[in-house]
Amino acid sequence: MRIGFIGLGIMGAPMARHLVAAGHEVVGHNRSAPAVEAFVAAGGLAAAPDELAATSDALVLVLPDGPDVEAVLFGDGSVDPGGTAADGVADHLRPGTLVVDCSTIAPETARSAAARLGRRGVRYVDAPVSGGESGAVAGTLAVMMGGTADDVAAAEEVVAPFAGSTAHVGPVGSGQLVKAANQVLVAGNIAVLAEALSLLRRTGVDLDAALAVLGGGLAASRVLELKAPKMLAGDLAPGFRLDLHHKDLKIALGAAERAGVGLPLTGTVTQLVLGLRAAGDGSLDHAALVRAIERLSGLPVTGGAVGPSGAPHGTPGRG
Amino acid sequence: MRIGFIGLGIMGAPMARHLVAAGHEVVGHNRSAPAVEAFVAAGGLAAAPDELAATSDALVLVLPDGPDVEAVLFGDGSVDPGGTAADGVADHLRPGTLVVDCSTIAPETARSAAARLGRRGVRYVDAPVSGGESGAVAGTLAVMMGGTADDVAAAEEVVAPFAGSTAHVGPVGSGQLVKAANQVLVAGNIAVLAEALSLLRRTGVDLDAALAVLGGGLAASRVLELKAPKMLAGDLAPGFRLDLHHKDLKIALGAAERAGVGLPLTGTVTQLVLGLRAAGDGSLDHAALVRAIERLSGLPVTGGAVGPSGAPHGTPGRG
Repeated sequence: MRIGFIGLGIMGAPMARHLVAAGHEVVGHNRSAPAVEAFVAAGGLAAAPDELAATSDALVLVLPDGPDVEAVLFGDGSVDPGGTAADGVADHLRPGTLVVDCSTIAPETARSAAARLGRRGVRYVDAPVSGGESGAVAGTLAVMMGGTADDVAAAEEVVAPFAGSTAHVGPVGSGQLVKAANQVLVAGNIAVLAEALSLLRRTGVDLDAALAVLGGGLAASRVLELKAPKMLAGDLAPGFRLDLHHKDLKIALGAAERAGVGLPLTGTVTQLVLGLRAAGDGSLDHAALVRAIERLSGLPVTGGAVGPSGAPHGTPGRG
Repeated sequence: MRIGFIGLGIMGAPMARHLVAAGHEVVGHNRSAPAVEAFVAAGGLAAAPDELAATSDALVLVLPDGPDVEAVLFGDGSVDPGGTAADGVADHLRPGTLVVDCSTIAPETARSAAARLGRRGVRYVDAPVSGGESGAVAGTLAVMMGGTADDVAAAEEVVAPFAGSTAHVGPVGSGQLVKAANQVLVAGNIAVLAEALSLLRRTGVDLDAALAVLGGGLAASRVLELKAPKMLAGDLAPGFRLDLHHKDLKIALGAAERAGVGLPLTGTVTQLVLGLRAAGDGSLDHAALVRAIERLSGLPVTGGAVGPSGAPHGTPGRG
């Protein structure tokens, strides 16, 4: 299959490489050139977006946010460096082409994109992923898909090389709703881990032994396994940036508002993340939620490096 | 080894049976007689607390709270039906006996008990467990132990038949600190699961498919695996009662206050649990945290049965 792939970032790059490794002819595009060059060096092809769109059987999108998806598909009114009006790839996709949108965006943005593409005879499946950079590199992402049964079945084949598990969870937009729930769980689990670890670090218990035994009981989680070591080591390089998790939490709170469900803990976690962004930590991994708990009580702040804001951020360590 | 075992409740009964199955001579005691009769039917022995204490090489306690531990060990000043002042078992334990306290109590209560026993030449290890009733039945509990290296090594042998994993996490009281962190994680993970599920139930997505795919990504947790099905089925029978989890969360908040760490999410979760107890749900499983989210927004309440307070609690169902 010839697959267009737009968005070769932390997640997209390894996902696209899995498609290449599976034997597909993959044509990549990314806003910044070095990502494209790295993809070509890894066996991918490169093309301008319209050519990529016009020649692909399926188009995978892995973009940061809803406006990015809308700009790539439908144009954003900006003007190219060459002087022509930038348009979207939708006008170049052949009827029958399948768009597999792995971006995390609002459910209603997904539904609107599907409707606009549908008028052109183009198919759309929302297929956001979970598992983080490590899941993308390992090809074990969880893919939550919304669309018609036929379209999702076709999308299964596209995502299989980077998926550890997939599910058809409902009509278009449903994948995004489940992803919103996923991000609620992940952020909440990280935040309570931040609290539990901050407590233990102040008590002098053996942290390595404690983490091992916590992982053997009802407190066991993927977040405990993957994020606790990062917090203890002061390694807050993304991974998954707080900026993006903030965007996802706002999508979840918006979906919850429309559904008529108040989410008190997620509301608090979202405000903690907002505070971290205000403190200059938005480009750190979401494990940096531990800093919110530390700053609240005037404790030394995990990570130690000078933050993106240029402000010093305390010292690393286990105490 | 001859092991005394006081506290044959939801957790203690299966733990004691594992000790019997491992070939130990186990002498059980419980405040209510039927639990003792069931234990004897399962191959255990029965004795009054002083006789049990005087003849045991090790004494395991699985009691609900700190005051229970203090009453059993040191007496509570009450008068027996026979008219003699009730005293504690500590006066009957032989020097060198090892007390393995699997109750979840405050770290300072554990330290005080260890000091009082130490004056009698009796050894003490705090060894709270995680894994819930299913872990107790399966013999796969996580056991977090505080004490001297020698005492913990001796306790390892005692707990092995019901342990899936053990850890020596520090001096006496450290096991309780790690258990407090465990309960912070478990309650927090359940509460955010309650939020995520309450959202999904209102959106019409395929819940079984959603849960399966959520379990394949970074949101995966033991709580997701064990508690989401209970919430969806409206099965809120304990398991682990909200009343006890509330006690444990207050222990955690007390430890955090002494350590100088504010825990904003755990504070909120504790208040949600307090509200559930006030609503008459304290004897339900901690999965009933989902009801706090539902009541907040006036949604139908999971479980459907008439609650302990006699008030109707809505209808079960998937949304």
